[in-house]
Amino acid sequence: MKPSQDTSTKDRLLASGAELFAEKGFDGVSVRQICAHASTSMNMIHHYFKSKQGLLDAIIEQYTSNVLGVPMRLLEKPARSKEDLLSRLELLFETTLEAYIEHRSLMLVVIREQTSPPALLQYMDRFAKFLEQSKKRGFVRKELDIQMVTGAMLDRILNQVQFAPLLKRTYGIDIMNDAKYRQRWCASNIDLFLHGIVQVQSRS
Amino acid sequence: MKPSQDTSTKDRLLASGAELFAEKGFDGVSVRQICAHASTSMNMIHHYFKSKQGLLDAIIEQYTSNVLGVPMRLLEKPARSKEDLLSRLELLFETTLEAYIEHRSLMLVVIREQTSPPALLQYMDRFAKFLEQSKKRGFVRKELDIQMVTGAMLDRILNQVQFAPLLKRTYGIDIMNDAKYRQRWCASNIDLFLHGIVQVQSRS
Repeated sequence: MKPSQDTSTKDRLLASGAELFAEKGFDGVSVRQICAHASTSMNMIHHYFKSKQGLLDAIIEQYTSNVLGVPMRLLEKPARSKEDLLSRLELLFETTLEAYIEHRSLMLVVIREQTSPPALLQYMDRFAKFLEQSKKRGFVRKELDIQMVTGAMLDRILNQVQFAPLLKRTYGIDIMNDAKYRQRWCASNIDLFLHGIVQVQSRS
Repeated sequence: MKPSQDTSTKDRLLASGAELFAEKGFDGVSVRQICAHASTSMNMIHHYFKSKQGLLDAIIEQYTSNVLGVPMRLLEKPARSKEDLLSRLELLFETTLEAYIEHRSLMLVVIREQTSPPALLQYMDRFAKFLEQSKKRGFVRKELDIQMVTGAMLDRILNQVQFAPLLKRTYGIDIMNDAKYRQRWCASNIDLFLHGIVQVQSRS
């Protein structure tokens, strides 16, 4: 989808770059193609981003404000109670999924170029710290390896969005557009992550 | 890595195809390049696989015997007890991870071309059935959505192998070669999936 002429040249270049890099990879796209897609002249990439690499860096940097800003706010304060922990993890899972859905191209670029955007590392760190605090307060199992939670939840979201077209073709499910399915999917996943597979005998 | 001359021509073509498709994508590789990489003449692809597409199909079909054969055997009989369920899930997780590590190129091709190999769907089905049986016997939580377990466990393994070079660069961990780390990683993940995040008050 071509970005509209109303958007600023810089934003059009960011959007076109994300879309084309996601589709063809960094090496598969020329500066000329990106400028044509963004309906702008060749020297604009140089003006705003110095080079194609500079444009890629700026696209990845967008992670900070666009993709992970909202979910990160949920992790700012420690959980007050077990119920508060559960609610916040649910919300975190939902808002992270929604952010990835909204910025799917951006995510595909990051996957394709195998980079770790600083904001993603910051998200993982803050999430881990949030869980450590909850463990100290007795809401999280003592045996749990916190790093696995942050990794597993993100892997789940990442792949659901990365493979959305395949999942639609294979199972007819449409996480990108079917809000009802998305809600159900989030609830079922959070249930798994919170309570695990195994039936505990005396759950009182 | 070029396949050795000792391997059969057909196997060399399968190995070279998997490696090059994984690296450059199906459209980014020519029949000529694959044959040169496999040290064989051009007409051999036609002889064994009819076309480049035929070679890709054969590579993906390898999933059946090579990648998922061993883990699938663990799911043949229902779990006899909760302990048996736990042991088998641990083994399933480890052997699936090992199979993906061994056949990483093949996996990258499947990811890149966004296909669902029949054997993968069969693996997911059998895994789901195994968990349903365990639920009927009271070993698995009644509320659990079985589909989420199979999906989440596979996502976790897939991404750990897909992003292995990135994880090595970023965190210095090497799941591909460090057997000790791999074991610890499996144990921590299985603990999460089996018992979840939340501390249960009266776990007796």
